[in-house]
Amino acid sequence: MKLDFPRYTERFGAINLSSVQRVYELDSGKSEEYHKTHQTVRKICDEELAETFGKLAIIIPIKSEKLKLLEGVLSGVPHDCLVIIVSNSPRQPVDRFKIECDTLKQFVHFVDRDAIIVHQKDSGLAEAFQKLGYNSILDGKLVRDGKAEGMIVGMLIAKMMGKEYVGFIDADNYIPGAVHEYAKIFASGILMSHSPYSMIRISWIYKPKVSQTGLYFAKWGRISEFTNKYLNAIISHYTGFETEIIKTGNSGEHAMSLKLAELLTYSSAFSIEPYEMVNIIEEFGGVFPSRYPEIVYEGIDILQVETRNPHFHEEKGEQHLKQMLRDSLYCIFSSKLCTPTIKQQILKDLKENGILTSKKRPQRLNTMQPLKAIDIAEFSNIVGKRSSTLGFYGSNLNRQMQTLTEGVAQF
Amino acid sequence: MKLDFPRYTERFGAINLSSVQRVYELDSGKSEEYHKTHQTVRKICDEELAETFGKLAIIIPIKSEKLKLLEGVLSGVPHDCLVIIVSNSPRQPVDRFKIECDTLKQFVHFVDRDAIIVHQKDSGLAEAFQKLGYNSILDGKLVRDGKAEGMIVGMLIAKMMGKEYVGFIDADNYIPGAVHEYAKIFASGILMSHSPYSMIRISWIYKPKVSQTGLYFAKWGRISEFTNKYLNAIISHYTGFETEIIKTGNSGEHAMSLKLAELLTYSSAFSIEPYEMVNIIEEFGGVFPSRYPEIVYEGIDILQVETRNPHFHEEKGEQHLKQMLRDSLYCIFSSKLCTPTIKQQILKDLKENGILTSKKRPQRLNTMQPLKAIDIAEFSNIVGKRSSTLGFYGSNLNRQMQTLTEGVAQF
Repeated sequence: MKLDFPRYTERFGAINLSSVQRVYELDSGKSEEYHKTHQTVRKICDEELAETFGKLAIIIPIKSEKLKLLEGVLSGVPHDCLVIIVSNSPRQPVDRFKIECDTLKQFVHFVDRDAIIVHQKDSGLAEAFQKLGYNSILDGKLVRDGKAEGMIVGMLIAKMMGKEYVGFIDADNYIPGAVHEYAKIFASGILMSHSPYSMIRISWIYKPKVSQTGLYFAKWGRISEFTNKYLNAIISHYTGFETEIIKTGNSGEHAMSLKLAELLTYSSAFSIEPYEMVNIIEEFGGVFPSRYPEIVYEGIDILQVETRNPHFHEEKGEQHLKQMLRDSLYCIFSSKLCTPTIKQQILKDLKENGILTSKKRPQRLNTMQPLKAIDIAEFSNIVGKRSSTLGFYGSNLNRQMQTLTEGVAQF
Repeated sequence: MKLDFPRYTERFGAINLSSVQRVYELDSGKSEEYHKTHQTVRKICDEELAETFGKLAIIIPIKSEKLKLLEGVLSGVPHDCLVIIVSNSPRQPVDRFKIECDTLKQFVHFVDRDAIIVHQKDSGLAEAFQKLGYNSILDGKLVRDGKAEGMIVGMLIAKMMGKEYVGFIDADNYIPGAVHEYAKIFASGILMSHSPYSMIRISWIYKPKVSQTGLYFAKWGRISEFTNKYLNAIISHYTGFETEIIKTGNSGEHAMSLKLAELLTYSSAFSIEPYEMVNIIEEFGGVFPSRYPEIVYEGIDILQVETRNPHFHEEKGEQHLKQMLRDSLYCIFSSKLCTPTIKQQILKDLKENGILTSKKRPQRLNTMQPLKAIDIAEFSNIVGKRSSTLGFYGSNLNRQMQTLTEGVAQF
């Protein structure tokens, strides 16, 4: 892979937020020479990528997405990455989760790769969270519905498996080659980052829309325009210099070092991606004192990388878009960073888009405390014993995990 | 990359034609263990791929395709492959070819890869063909219009550059990740082939159609259905066993060893892909005596590989489809293999699709004699001296080619 070196970086507090970097080549060849001579473009070698993939878990939240799409996504994830599927698909009247397990099992049978699957509503998972006092993820006796909640479960499994990085890829992607590119971008970003606290967010080159006259290669998703505008407004306000640097406010496809991931507070449902940015700015932007002074010293690197592949995914309809817009803007609105002027603008946009009636005020979204609070050995122990849906696939993983999973019901 | 071993092979005469093989993973990881244990799935390592890319030229015929698409295609071609663009874009009123050269130059500036571009209507090219007696490609004083003619120019440049394999990728592909997969499939097929005379044809997993209700993931293109049906009918007729093995009759994305490529007779315009199959069966199928008995001994391997990526490309409209259907069926109709019964069926289909009126008979398409006839050193010498459009880009190529291109006008 060949991509831009970061060329412009906004620095505020401990955060180094780089402007969007472009990808030039998906595969950069074996010649060594290029490395030394180039100033603007960084070549990432296959060996470097492969090594990083070994430390990276790819978390795929799934909720009734078509199995053909899941199969495609799996085929695009590099073999050396650990796949972690967190499913919140219905189990009745048809047990969709069982079908997902079967699909994964069949895939692993032929490619022999490491993969883990778990159901979000597994009572063993909830039990572990409860016993370890991480109640903010629970809704009654089970883990709450929501993509964010699934992602947290995935991150904990990644940590439990000793991975260093997590990347998120949605299950509704039509293009396996794009999935492959995301993983390469994640690994490249990790390799280009100077801090152990790093985040890599994907910016799509195009997000094609299907119209009657064919395909239109739109540059931005509709929600992103709002989210990016307000995240940039917040940064502009505190630095005093107007900026448009954030282009990836809603990026579902993103990766983090677990070191960073376990420090963040997460927001529920569809606001998780913008809230990660909000929370990083709250925590490390220098506006408020940080709870983690030792990390302020190291710095947080945030890279944004533009794909070569367009983002073709399933259309989820008007209702889903409204929900995403609401969650995204609510989480910015609720932040202690948000100024009265920005709040006014957000309220205006929410009303104009038919999300808020004139009398209501945005409600604060559920947040979940940093994962650092969870004793991972204990989590692993309880989940290993009590989970009824956790499935480990792949001969390698089976061997490695025999001790850990004693007592785990193979689905 | 992980893909099926060939699991079912039709053998007729010297031809080994394998049924469609599936791709499981776009990237197969660095572990060596898998190699030894698997029976059905072949792992192709990054090193093997990289080595094969070094012997492979990717030929991209272009005719006014959007430059954004060309850029995407270029980013998907593995770095170590030699890119050869053969353009037949108009040079007036706007010089599209110059813009293509500029695009390529800019791309190469940042990635420093080997790339060659030439215009199909270059009088120096035509002069070389004329002097070497290869008149079947000419139309008056210049090379004839047509994709096939462009592909032949590309193959000769690949041979001139010492490459062993050629792969063809259309310039109108929306998905750089798919292009990348094609190249990996080409290299994997080359590595899996036992004969030095090999051909790898791409079968698309889906060819999505844009409709008013969204995307429909169709399995087959409309033309392919006809072409495959008749190619299979011919094989079935001569073997006496009905078969549906051919699924890639119109595959624009395909690769060949130059050893095979230079033995084939080519058909003009859009019939080139099906005619390659027709000609291979004519020449090596054992129905008629072969002109190349030494090659009959080695055998010809034809692999068909199904992509993971769907094939999203520009819609060229009804007229283009009709032309493709006409050319494809004409070239099968004209073959000495085609039986009276099959001819009757083809005529019926041509009439039903409004291509032939009841009185006309299909005309034989132009064919071009095997490239073997061309003295490549002499070709290279004449083109080197007389071409006005041939451009070599990339520092590596520039060094290598200094002797060859003495006298070449850099565009």
